[in-house]
Amino acid sequence: MTERITSVDTIDVRFPTSVHRDGSDAMNPFPDYSAAYVVLRTSAGAEGHGLIFTVGRGTEIQVAAVRSLAAMVIDQPVDALVADPGALARRLVGDSQIRWLGPAKGVVHMAAGGLVNAVWDLAARRAGKPLWKLLADLTPEQLVAQVDFRYLRDALTEDEALALLRRANDGRAAREQQLRAEGYPAYTTTPGWLGYDDEKLARLCAEAVRDGYQLIKLKVGGDLADDVRRMGIARQAVGPQIRLAVDANQIWGVPEAIRWMRELAAFDPYWIEEPTSPDDVLGHAAVRKALSPIRVATGEHVHNAVVFKQLLQADAVDVVQIDACRVAGVNENLAILLLAAHFGVPVCPHAGGVGLCELVQHLAMFDFVAVSGSTDDRAIEYVDHLHEHFVDPVRVTGGRYLAPTTPGMSAEILPTSLAAFRFPDGPQWADTGAPAEAPTQ
Amino acid sequence: MTERITSVDTIDVRFPTSVHRDGSDAMNPFPDYSAAYVVLRTSAGAEGHGLIFTVGRGTEIQVAAVRSLAAMVIDQPVDALVADPGALARRLVGDSQIRWLGPAKGVVHMAAGGLVNAVWDLAARRAGKPLWKLLADLTPEQLVAQVDFRYLRDALTEDEALALLRRANDGRAAREQQLRAEGYPAYTTTPGWLGYDDEKLARLCAEAVRDGYQLIKLKVGGDLADDVRRMGIARQAVGPQIRLAVDANQIWGVPEAIRWMRELAAFDPYWIEEPTSPDDVLGHAAVRKALSPIRVATGEHVHNAVVFKQLLQADAVDVVQIDACRVAGVNENLAILLLAAHFGVPVCPHAGGVGLCELVQHLAMFDFVAVSGSTDDRAIEYVDHLHEHFVDPVRVTGGRYLAPTTPGMSAEILPTSLAAFRFPDGPQWADTGAPAEAPTQ
Repeated sequence: MTERITSVDTIDVRFPTSVHRDGSDAMNPFPDYSAAYVVLRTSAGAEGHGLIFTVGRGTEIQVAAVRSLAAMVIDQPVDALVADPGALARRLVGDSQIRWLGPAKGVVHMAAGGLVNAVWDLAARRAGKPLWKLLADLTPEQLVAQVDFRYLRDALTEDEALALLRRANDGRAAREQQLRAEGYPAYTTTPGWLGYDDEKLARLCAEAVRDGYQLIKLKVGGDLADDVRRMGIARQAVGPQIRLAVDANQIWGVPEAIRWMRELAAFDPYWIEEPTSPDDVLGHAAVRKALSPIRVATGEHVHNAVVFKQLLQADAVDVVQIDACRVAGVNENLAILLLAAHFGVPVCPHAGGVGLCELVQHLAMFDFVAVSGSTDDRAIEYVDHLHEHFVDPVRVTGGRYLAPTTPGMSAEILPTSLAAFRFPDGPQWADTGAPAEAPTQ
Repeated sequence: MTERITSVDTIDVRFPTSVHRDGSDAMNPFPDYSAAYVVLRTSAGAEGHGLIFTVGRGTEIQVAAVRSLAAMVIDQPVDALVADPGALARRLVGDSQIRWLGPAKGVVHMAAGGLVNAVWDLAARRAGKPLWKLLADLTPEQLVAQVDFRYLRDALTEDEALALLRRANDGRAAREQQLRAEGYPAYTTTPGWLGYDDEKLARLCAEAVRDGYQLIKLKVGGDLADDVRRMGIARQAVGPQIRLAVDANQIWGVPEAIRWMRELAAFDPYWIEEPTSPDDVLGHAAVRKALSPIRVATGEHVHNAVVFKQLLQADAVDVVQIDACRVAGVNENLAILLLAAHFGVPVCPHAGGVGLCELVQHLAMFDFVAVSGSTDDRAIEYVDHLHEHFVDPVRVTGGRYLAPTTPGMSAEILPTSLAAFRFPDGPQWADTGAPAEAPTQ
């Protein structure tokens, strides 16, 4: 009997993080970190797990999108799926009727990503390897075949990608050994949420330095006087050598971003993240030009590889921030890693939320071993929330992510956590004192 | 008693257009034109109608998005809603949790647009005016207050928009009179669907010229030899004076678009529409530069005003194609009309589908009376499908749209049609011989 996908379970799971304002920023003062959680099950009893990170309200829309796209996965033969997840990604993104709802953006695109990532998780489990290792063991030809180049060739052709990957073959084994021994650099956003008071900010900054972090990120953009004061506190707490990045979460228009950041320049910000709309390629280019040498970073809301391509073509970013759940899965992130390497721009993945650290570490580690071949000026975001809910949580120590060793993509949430935080019927939502925030707030 | 919104009905309605391949193009060979249909009901018994055009599969996701956002409309006082639909648009687009699912793109953004448009329909019905007239009677100050300028000010400030609208005050009354007397130019896409054979193409082209159209559009991008042959047939049928536009529906990458269109240049194409990904601002600019004097048009899939802003800033388009249902409603389309007028680029609205002609005509007519003040090189797309399902269908004669006179936005579908084509339980879906296309095709 051919092994087939027999079911796709989709669960709306929400954590009431707004109670303590963990994750609070200029655009999102009261987030409830959530996920549309996906489990593929096969006729042989195997599983592939995936998730799409969300921020509370609206997770039910994300779940509806996954359920609709799941029809394209159910009954598919597993051997073919795991041998070529790129074929599934093309079918999901290219469906001639559903693509009207994007194309390649928003909840439908993220739903495709959740399903594609679950297939990669299944593939890595079957191979008995963590995903980063499964990817790093593919040949340049196999990797290039996993990317849809339709809209990318004016910036990167298949041949250029192949040449880049073949160059990276040199030293793969040594870098893999280094990764297993030393891990991959992390940076921390834990100290800098807007909802934290000054004392907590100073204390967490000092702790982060003691813990070995070389880069710490603060949220900005709520109030200029507050930002000046908070940047001063943070700079004093960390000293002149530690890199301090700031993140505006899209709060500004272009002229405002430039004005505001000039007021913070005295504190030597390493990068300004999401200064304006994530769709505004030309706006990011203008901000970068005006604020140099402050770097410009973006990506957690950049909805597909076509927009990343333009950010690179327009010299609009110094730092590419991939997100494991925003685009159509591992395959589209592979395209983005190739584009970034081709343009010589470092990738510092966005993480935090629920499960984003767990998922995206695999992509950064694969990039180090097999694509860019470097960790210079690179670090994966780290936030110390909600990892206790994962079967294979990230291990971060001394300011570094240790390489996962468990087969899969580390996406699996503990059954007890899924049961407790299932929305709206899980006991944590029925029993907690979490604010039932009105949708019109 | 304050009049309030008491309910928001949302209906999945689908027309089995794939049977005759009406609407077939390079990316969408078998569309089933559909809509997420919205009815706001008030405690005084009034109604506001809106719809989001879709293409079959996935309409249930669009419906789910509208139902989630409807929570922000229910119980709202009607006087405040209709006095300032822009405030609702900002709440819907800016909700701090839901915006993670975009921001400002995909099904969630279109859902916001459907609700905002339904509020404008309600406002126009209460005012006893067709929407174009309601808008044209607003002052420049009132219009500017309806636009969210957050991400637009590097291209267009409130003051610049005000100055533009004040200049357009001259001649408003005369243009309104002209509009009522002569209507607004239309162009037709009816002859050119990819699924039609050569005889039907030639016959419909000749008919279109006899019917008074000055611009006819053909779908291209399936097969180059077919396109060369079809363009030759069409050019022969219409003669040298009639404008022939072509539409690739995003099938190409940038280098391919340039190569392909050079093969069609001998037939004097007036514009190439959607040569590549709608997200690729820089790609459109490259195509335009390479193909000049062939014009570049896009917009039906441009997901928000920030992307239109960049298309204009980058000199990437000659024709702005607004769509009534893609962005967050009348308010965001007002922003796009202002941007286009500011950059001096004509707007030729995308229409067709289900109800797109009915809705978008109001925006083009308003633009003529109160914004750009011109119909030069402007025309609204017209396709002669599915108008029989509307209470106030468009009236197109002699190649021109007549100005609507019925109060509202012309969005209302006949109750009998809603009942017949409701998916999946309407009798047209239970009884028809429509192909039950597998979702994995």
